[in-house]
Amino acid sequence: MNAPLSASDVPRGFAFSALHCGLKRSRLDLGLLVSETPAAAAAVFTTNQVVAAPVVASREHLAQSRHRLRGIVVNSGNANCCTRVDGLPASRATAAALAQQMGCEPSQFLVCSTGVIGPPLRVDKILRSVPALVQGRSPETGAFEEFARAIMTTDTRPKWGAATCYLDGKKVRLLGCAKGSGMIQPNMATMLGFIATDAAFSPALLDRALRAAVSSTFNSITVDGDTSTNDTVALLANGESGARRVASAASPDYKTFLAALERVCMSLALAIVEDGEGAQRVIEIEVRGAPSNRAALQVARTIANSPLVKTAFAGADPNWGRILAAAGRSGVRFDWRNATIWIAGIGVCRRGRERAFDERAVHQKMLARHVPVRLDLRSGKGSGRVWTCDLTQEYVHINASYRT
Amino acid sequence: MNAPLSASDVPRGFAFSALHCGLKRSRLDLGLLVSETPAAAAAVFTTNQVVAAPVVASREHLAQSRHRLRGIVVNSGNANCCTRVDGLPASRATAAALAQQMGCEPSQFLVCSTGVIGPPLRVDKILRSVPALVQGRSPETGAFEEFARAIMTTDTRPKWGAATCYLDGKKVRLLGCAKGSGMIQPNMATMLGFIATDAAFSPALLDRALRAAVSSTFNSITVDGDTSTNDTVALLANGESGARRVASAASPDYKTFLAALERVCMSLALAIVEDGEGAQRVIEIEVRGAPSNRAALQVARTIANSPLVKTAFAGADPNWGRILAAAGRSGVRFDWRNATIWIAGIGVCRRGRERAFDERAVHQKMLARHVPVRLDLRSGKGSGRVWTCDLTQEYVHINASYRT
Repeated sequence: MNAPLSASDVPRGFAFSALHCGLKRSRLDLGLLVSETPAAAAAVFTTNQVVAAPVVASREHLAQSRHRLRGIVVNSGNANCCTRVDGLPASRATAAALAQQMGCEPSQFLVCSTGVIGPPLRVDKILRSVPALVQGRSPETGAFEEFARAIMTTDTRPKWGAATCYLDGKKVRLLGCAKGSGMIQPNMATMLGFIATDAAFSPALLDRALRAAVSSTFNSITVDGDTSTNDTVALLANGESGARRVASAASPDYKTFLAALERVCMSLALAIVEDGEGAQRVIEIEVRGAPSNRAALQVARTIANSPLVKTAFAGADPNWGRILAAAGRSGVRFDWRNATIWIAGIGVCRRGRERAFDERAVHQKMLARHVPVRLDLRSGKGSGRVWTCDLTQEYVHINASYRT
Repeated sequence: MNAPLSASDVPRGFAFSALHCGLKRSRLDLGLLVSETPAAAAAVFTTNQVVAAPVVASREHLAQSRHRLRGIVVNSGNANCCTRVDGLPASRATAAALAQQMGCEPSQFLVCSTGVIGPPLRVDKILRSVPALVQGRSPETGAFEEFARAIMTTDTRPKWGAATCYLDGKKVRLLGCAKGSGMIQPNMATMLGFIATDAAFSPALLDRALRAAVSSTFNSITVDGDTSTNDTVALLANGESGARRVASAASPDYKTFLAALERVCMSLALAIVEDGEGAQRVIEIEVRGAPSNRAALQVARTIANSPLVKTAFAGADPNWGRILAAAGRSGVRFDWRNATIWIAGIGVCRRGRERAFDERAVHQKMLARHVPVRLDLRSGKGSGRVWTCDLTQEYVHINASYRT
């Protein structure tokens, strides 16, 4: 759940805006995040080969602006992907309209879209709304919360997270939000996630920090194994805190900032899993004793995407055989006769065999909102963690009726 | 649906038996297939590293008997896998009891188990029933149909298929059955499938025929991407048709037999998908224009296992964006701006963009029991086909309540 925000959580020099431009029936569907001064920017994008037009435009803009941005504009309700008419002009026109209003270059904006794939984006509705969007911006927490709502699609709630840390004796603020609850298996990127900070960074070092934070957070979650065509996480740092610029990855300031950034990313990533389509609970899958960290993640991810494991958790059924069977088909070599499994802290399988355990007690513990699973392969020193959610009838209901 | 069987479909020299030994509450749970004379035998097993005791025992028996078997015994209701007490003695004792009754070697039997993983197999119930099982065997179609029922777990109906062909001017019969509706993504093997024939084969050539037939049939289906720990397909050829032994893979007889074998395997594989847990329809995914046949299968399989694609088919929603997005994350390189997609014969996406189509008409066609999807990547000459089923709320219901 989101912690309540106060004015002191908002990084200096940022403002937010949101409105309903008509892409969705009645909910907020257009959002803007701006830095009043140019900010160093880093972003990671989907690894799906099928990429939406806004991802193409945003990559171009990052390069053209030499990673110095003024803001991010996001529409929900339409992914602007694989549309009948080329979607790139629509993304570019959106940035151009913003630039005109703000008095800067089009390349200083990232353009993001999320929603259904295929139908053409009614960019006219966006362009018509740009003046009101720009004029309506505000640094207040309420404006930020509306921005977080404006990027939602099947999400049932907005997701935000804040952190502060001290660099150079000065307070620095990080504030982020994310959307996503289906087509979630981020890979080097996630659904949409945006983080603003008033720390001062070079674009190169900011990029390094973002990639480090994303790999253990957004890239370690999965709802359904489907990587989206529009995934984007962006981080803007405008230096308005007054703290000196973070010098290098070896500096204590970098480590302090990275820890705060990871906290924000992790809270957003977990919020996405918690809000996974139809999800009742988050399952944390920790694999130890794998041949390598990479192998551990591969095992954890195979378990996390197994429909049989995920449905067993929907029924709070301690069906550890499905967990071991999924590990067995993961492609990682291990001796399953060494494998030991705990569900919700209770040992259920020891060295590949069922262990005497109180099934009713485990079932009760599995009804919680957060259930840890630990699998020790005893085949090496690698470890890794992945977070997923249970697969419920509601997931099917949502996705069988998304369009028709 | 199963075609009705007549006496002339049953291969000469085979008999079948089934009974309720008490592993399940009231349904048939123990089956026997025997050849009255030693038969050449071929079998393929699961590629999951976690293998059940009966798979270990069956592999041993095949080697010890030099691929000459008298029969196959199958229990349903318990997988005899990862049990607290080592399950291997139970599998061996079952074969030994059968051998004593039949007057042959224990290694002349394959032993198969299917059902829940973990709880110990009550082998005493099986051993007690072996005399009645052996004495009750019969070559009649009714006995075969009961055998096909005795191997079922969550299956809603038995699955069998028959074919005949002429080798050396003599009629040869093939009769097979299979079970499976969840934990289905066979890989070099499937759930349980058994085929008897009165053709005459060397074990080596029989093995070649079985592997060829399995790769394009059982290994090309998926229900949920989960490969089971007990998968087994076995083929017994006792030569009782009187047709001369098939000489080599180059002979016309081999090709005739292989075509008949593929027909039987394909009908059983499709019956498994049709009976996929909670399935309403079969989706045939054909990929063309891939860099290679292997790449085509990889794309087809990624689409076939995408929860978002499978739920869209549950709602008969022509959401081709999910199909293209799944192909895009499959790991196969292609230019998605060339990709063209047909659903139920209607073009919905042309060169990566939405095509004008009558959504209502496609929706109507998608309500059928069998829906073809074709994806042309226009990036090479490789092609491949995979069959899957839709993902429904009923799948979740079945698997969230399997044990507790």
